[in-house]
Amino acid sequence: MAKKLWGGRFKKNIDKDFFEFQKSIQYDHKLAKYDIMHSLIHVIALYWANILSVKEKQFLLSALKEIQETINRGKFKHNMQSEDIHTDIHNKVEAKIGKLALKLHTLRSRNDQIVFDEKSYCYEKGRLLVKFLADLGASLKFLGNKYRKTLIVGYTHTQRAQKIYFAEYIGAFCNMFERDKKRIFDFLTRIEIHIGAGALAGSLIKKECYDKAIKDVAQSNLFSVSKNSIDDVSDRDFIIEFLSDLSILQMHLSRLSEDLIIFSTKEFNFIDLPEEFCTGSSLMPHKKNPDFLELVRGSTGKIYGNLMAILTIMKGMPLTYNRDMQLDKEPLFSSVETIEQELKIISKFIKKVELNLAKINAALKDVGLSAVDEAAELVIKKGISFRDAHDIIGRKIRELEG
Amino acid sequence: MAKKLWGGRFKKNIDKDFFEFQKSIQYDHKLAKYDIMHSLIHVIALYWANILSVKEKQFLLSALKEIQETINRGKFKHNMQSEDIHTDIHNKVEAKIGKLALKLHTLRSRNDQIVFDEKSYCYEKGRLLVKFLADLGASLKFLGNKYRKTLIVGYTHTQRAQKIYFAEYIGAFCNMFERDKKRIFDFLTRIEIHIGAGALAGSLIKKECYDKAIKDVAQSNLFSVSKNSIDDVSDRDFIIEFLSDLSILQMHLSRLSEDLIIFSTKEFNFIDLPEEFCTGSSLMPHKKNPDFLELVRGSTGKIYGNLMAILTIMKGMPLTYNRDMQLDKEPLFSSVETIEQELKIISKFIKKVELNLAKINAALKDVGLSAVDEAAELVIKKGISFRDAHDIIGRKIRELEG
Amino acid sequence: MAKKLWGGRFKKNIDKDFFEFQKSIQYDHKLAKYDIMHSLIHVIALYWANILSVKEKQFLLSALKEIQETINRGKFKHNMQSEDIHTDIHNKVEAKIGKLALKLHTLRSRNDQIVFDEKSYCYEKGRLLVKFLADLGASLKFLGNKYRKTLIVGYTHTQRAQKIYFAEYIGAFCNMFERDKKRIFDFLTRIEIHIGAGALAGSLIKKECYDKAIKDVAQSNLFSVSKNSIDDVSDRDFIIEFLSDLSILQMHLSRLSEDLIIFSTKEFNFIDLPEEFCTGSSLMPHKKNPDFLELVRGSTGKIYGNLMAILTIMKGMPLTYNRDMQLDKEPLFSSVETIEQELKIISKFIKKVELNLAKINAALKDVGLSAVDEAAELVIKKGISFRDAHDIIGRKIRELEG
Amino acid sequence: MAKKLWGGRFKKNIDKDFFEFQKSIQYDHKLAKYDIMHSLIHVIALYWANILSVKEKQFLLSALKEIQETINRGKFKHNMQSEDIHTDIHNKVEAKIGKLALKLHTLRSRNDQIVFDEKSYCYEKGRLLVKFLADLGASLKFLGNKYRKTLIVGYTHTQRAQKIYFAEYIGAFCNMFERDKKRIFDFLTRIEIHIGAGALAGSLIKKECYDKAIKDVAQSNLFSVSKNSIDDVSDRDFIIEFLSDLSILQMHLSRLSEDLIIFSTKEFNFIDLPEEFCTGSSLMPHKKNPDFLELVRGSTGKIYGNLMAILTIMKGMPLTYNRDMQLDKEPLFSSVETIEQELKIISKFIKKVELNLAKINAALKDVGLSAVDEAAELVIKKGISFRDAHDIIGRKIRELEG
Repeated sequence: MAKKLWGGRFKKNIDKDFFEFQKSIQYDHKLAKYDIMHSLIHVIALYWANILSVKEKQFLLSALKEIQETINRGKFKHNMQSEDIHTDIHNKVEAKIGKLALKLHTLRSRNDQIVFDEKSYCYEKGRLLVKFLADLGASLKFLGNKYRKTLIVGYTHTQRAQKIYFAEYIGAFCNMFERDKKRIFDFLTRIEIHIGAGALAGSLIKKECYDKAIKDVAQSNLFSVSKNSIDDVSDRDFIIEFLSDLSILQMHLSRLSEDLIIFSTKEFNFIDLPEEFCTGSSLMPHKKNPDFLELVRGSTGKIYGNLMAILTIMKGMPLTYNRDMQLDKEPLFSSVETIEQELKIISKFIKKVELNLAKINAALKDVGLSAVDEAAELVIKKGISFRDAHDIIGRKIRELEG
Repeated sequence: MAKKLWGGRFKKNIDKDFFEFQKSIQYDHKLAKYDIMHSLIHVIALYWANILSVKEKQFLLSALKEIQETINRGKFKHNMQSEDIHTDIHNKVEAKIGKLALKLHTLRSRNDQIVFDEKSYCYEKGRLLVKFLADLGASLKFLGNKYRKTLIVGYTHTQRAQKIYFAEYIGAFCNMFERDKKRIFDFLTRIEIHIGAGALAGSLIKKECYDKAIKDVAQSNLFSVSKNSIDDVSDRDFIIEFLSDLSILQMHLSRLSEDLIIFSTKEFNFIDLPEEFCTGSSLMPHKKNPDFLELVRGSTGKIYGNLMAILTIMKGMPLTYNRDMQLDKEPLFSSVETIEQELKIISKFIKKVELNLAKINAALKDVGLSAVDEAAELVIKKGISFRDAHDIIGRKIRELEG
Repeated sequence: MAKKLWGGRFKKNIDKDFFEFQKSIQYDHKLAKYDIMHSLIHVIALYWANILSVKEKQFLLSALKEIQETINRGKFKHNMQSEDIHTDIHNKVEAKIGKLALKLHTLRSRNDQIVFDEKSYCYEKGRLLVKFLADLGASLKFLGNKYRKTLIVGYTHTQRAQKIYFAEYIGAFCNMFERDKKRIFDFLTRIEIHIGAGALAGSLIKKECYDKAIKDVAQSNLFSVSKNSIDDVSDRDFIIEFLSDLSILQMHLSRLSEDLIIFSTKEFNFIDLPEEFCTGSSLMPHKKNPDFLELVRGSTGKIYGNLMAILTIMKGMPLTYNRDMQLDKEPLFSSVETIEQELKIISKFIKKVELNLAKINAALKDVGLSAVDEAAELVIKKGISFRDAHDIIGRKIRELEG
Repeated sequence: MAKKLWGGRFKKNIDKDFFEFQKSIQYDHKLAKYDIMHSLIHVIALYWANILSVKEKQFLLSALKEIQETINRGKFKHNMQSEDIHTDIHNKVEAKIGKLALKLHTLRSRNDQIVFDEKSYCYEKGRLLVKFLADLGASLKFLGNKYRKTLIVGYTHTQRAQKIYFAEYIGAFCNMFERDKKRIFDFLTRIEIHIGAGALAGSLIKKECYDKAIKDVAQSNLFSVSKNSIDDVSDRDFIIEFLSDLSILQMHLSRLSEDLIIFSTKEFNFIDLPEEFCTGSSLMPHKKNPDFLELVRGSTGKIYGNLMAILTIMKGMPLTYNRDMQLDKEPLFSSVETIEQELKIISKFIKKVELNLAKINAALKDVGLSAVDEAAELVIKKGISFRDAHDIIGRKIRELEG
């Protein structure tokens, strides 16, 4: 296994099975980009705090920037023997500039780094998903517009209810994804990405040094110095809130999928699904299955399960940081990446959906679909009460059905 | 069973076990207050639409207002034989003014009423909880201030880490509940309470009539006319979002409880819990148990379970309204009421917590708590790297422990 | 509030809001029957241990039996001011025989009682559900037999796949509920209902005394003396396992409901649902909605949520009893009672389902349903590989569809 | 992308993003071993059904056995471009023996294969976990025996309650894991691994041919021919039941972890944790953290989340197979592998735990721990009621505490 960031007080070597069980590099390498940002700010803060000389600062920064460059070019390779991404980057810096690297982690804690990294990840991914939701909205609007004068059957209880406009039906989904956008947007607005919490008790480096360093490194005002270090290292609210928002979004995707699956059955046959997103059967040659929609619907299990996972982890967690919290990353990445893929594909998919107007128009002839209008007419023209009109029309339909 | 709002097309009587299984009056009676509001607006809209005469309007309004009065005085009694709160109020109006009541439900659907009622409930309860969270914040600040110069042991991994100020420790919880407040506040800002969606296809009553009616009845601009009726009757996002926010809030309560439970063990003995919130054992005479904190921690199960319930219900739900959605109310009420009780009690509880300073001060003497400062000193005074300083101090501690 | 079973060491009165928050009588009164059984055994054990005289034993037993009689006649009324069912029964005994009642709780703990009560509840309800599952199996078989030569369309991916026998389709559900029966049966076989664990450290009353008492009171060998008292009072596995089994059962009910909902749409129209289990719309006179099936499907939220609740409660619970565990009862009762109702109604419902043979036979003419047979014929008669035959038939269908 | 097992009826190529989204080879390659077994049986059944000649059978079997050999040697490499493991093996056979491979999938469906594979996986892993649970039981017994005469403080409500034997305390955990073993054992006893269900409608190959093939290939009576093909391809009960059992097991692990974490705090200090399973802090040189126990406790999130995932997926799933069900594998593998690792490590860990007898003995002197015995003495010697004795001792303790 690779070098560790601790160990002086330990007499015995770490158990190998335990080392494998506890390491997080296999997933937290995805945070490399943000972890470098933390290191850049930290190194400059150490310089302003007179802990690093100009030279030391420069050597450290240039090593870090080389790694940053590799990450940006998509060429970063993590060492699976490292304990975590923080250690991995530390070791890479050491490989570049030798013993000076041992000053990188001065007065810093991984507890501070990880929450900085994860919040940055959520922030960037949240913005991406907002964009993807806008794309999906555009696709839905495209489809709604294409059939903007088309009436379809509206359902309650999966039973025919009243005629509705297809565009308004599609508009309902636009509303849902619009709410998702706003919800994520509000979430992003409330995120505060802090640096300088130390392990739990704040940093011996003064706030001013961090303030200057943040200005030097990052153009945005995304980052700021820790105000309550205990809260900072203990907090995982942002992950739960993000996964909650994604659960609602996923629920919307599952409802859209369910409707399209039903509408594309041979029996409804109101829509044609784009073949490029269907698969066949290895046994039954005639099959064209709505696999994409089924997989989207089924992904609800994963997204809900991930939310339940992080909620369970954080239940009754004593302050401040506990190692349980390392397990927040897999559910976070899993939900974000799944939703990313779904949104990307469904935006293409929706544009290619086609209505089968012949079938729809045949269904629209169902007399039941006008029952409300008939009752309304009785109310307005004959002045009888709606309850009575409802009864009259109800009995008429009973007789029609024999 | 009491009169129903439907039935003309049915030849057979409803099965009695099924009637009991499907009715919701046993819990949705809690929405009476909001349901009356819907009826008041609806009646006036019917009048503006020329469907009710002035007289009819007046009779209906005065019957509704009598019921409203009863609700406000806390004297409302629902009939357990009614199918739901909408039917119950309908029947009560009929009992007061006879057949004219049959005009109350003209061109209206319970699908529209229920979502109006539930959103109003969430809105009112959300505001109440924001207030309760402010109260809890005040209690915590009171406690923090009382011991504002007190140092305590800070923990990571439930192991002693560094000295921290008790006030800052308490401040971490203040931050959590402050975030909860903001999260609920944002949620409330985004709620739109609509009227006029009908069953799914909108109302035959014109928007203007509803607009006027809303102005006549409600001072606030809380209510507005449905824009997309399909979305309105299908949407339960607001319940999921509320229950998600409450899950995070409950998680915070569980963490606070866990810490206080640990700190009040005989072994830690850092705090004294107020006796009024503890109970004893029926067997062991010496026991004083932190029951309140345990019940708060345990309530996390209920709150998470309720979130999972509504998420499960809404998964893959075809548009628009389906009867499954009736089952949204029990988890909503259960979570809101539980959190209400918890917040009310914990605000009193926190004020009475006392620190056991003797025990705390003894613990603060632990040399480990200064290890970071010693390492920092080596770095600053001797100019060695932090990794080396960490190693030196680590080895020193290993030797001390033998 | 009513008399409590503890309090000597307390100087202050319990906070009233907290008392309301912590009491459990509002739900645990359902355990009265089992709690009396525990008391009967305990009193006799105290007698064999020479702690009660014959007279005392007789007085206590006759008071308990009077209460038992009331419970059996369904006339038991709990006092909402009692803390819990144990206290309530204790107070009722005191009301009957005065101060002697104070000997009832000698060397006994509610920790021991509650687990005895809950296991007894699970055991009795488990057996009832096994019976109800057998009834449902019989109803399904009745329906399968009624149409035993009927072919229907079989689906994969909700798309038409191959012809299948309706009886075999129904048989799939019979298998599911049969597995549920076996699963619950295995669970019941493994339940051990113990007495004598005390608060956690066992009882000062000798095992022999309890052994004799069990023999005196209970004919069955359902009860036995605690072997590991620590495990006994800490264990809630039986609740989680029961709620897991009920979750699988509920999942089966939701699948049956989903299929019947789809099959009863106007578009499929393969089945007629019994009107007695449907409801109408307050707006749309023509509606006949599959409400029962929707409510069953929706109840999945409740059942899953209850499982998640108890799992969350027990996560990381220190040994032995903690007050959090009081909150195991609401999810348990909720799931058991919901499933009880569902099974009772669905057994009646299923018998009245009718197939719409005309619609089914029309659908069976779909050529796609024979595609596998055609491919098989090519393989068998022409000796070509199945992959090639699959391709040939696939292309043929593509051409047919234009 | 690699060759697919379907496609004749499709005019358009599959969308590339969708292909990536829908493929399962990245996880279902773990089923290779079981999938080969299905193919071996299937090929021989085709031979007995006169669909394959002796030669064809031999060629296919030898290709399959070569692959089996590679799997057994741990050298199997799946092609990430294959859709799934079934396709991957099919393509590998084709690479070995050319066009004859196209006969491998004759009259067979992946719906049948996957459930065969997954049940086989559960069966094998279930047996392994039973063995690991036995190992953990042995480790616990070793620890219990080592301190078999040691008394420790027993807790209720995390407050000191009564003295108990350490061995009995450990025995409580032994009981828990023993119940887990029995629960999994019962589950394994009820698993039936079938072959021959086809896509949903059974196979055109006669039962006798499969019967003979099973006898030829597999020594055990683990496999049998499908009885209800519709149930077979629709059923995922075995995954939910397994993940439920693992959730209870994980809950036990979390309780054990929680207790050991508390007992190893500096304040309790009742136990010494083996250093090989702890880690340090990158900032605080003195730290030795119970990371293994924390990660075990935190893994509860993952295990519960996986259960919730599969429950959510199967809710309301129409018969028979739907693509959603593909998503059952990741939660299954994740839970099984996590528990496997935990059990393997904790068995080693437990053996190395050491009691700190000095601290324990000091704690045992707490007078409260004898309160029950004192009350009992009053009852037995003075004949007063237990409630009165409880009061007397309670008041005495109140005075002692000042």
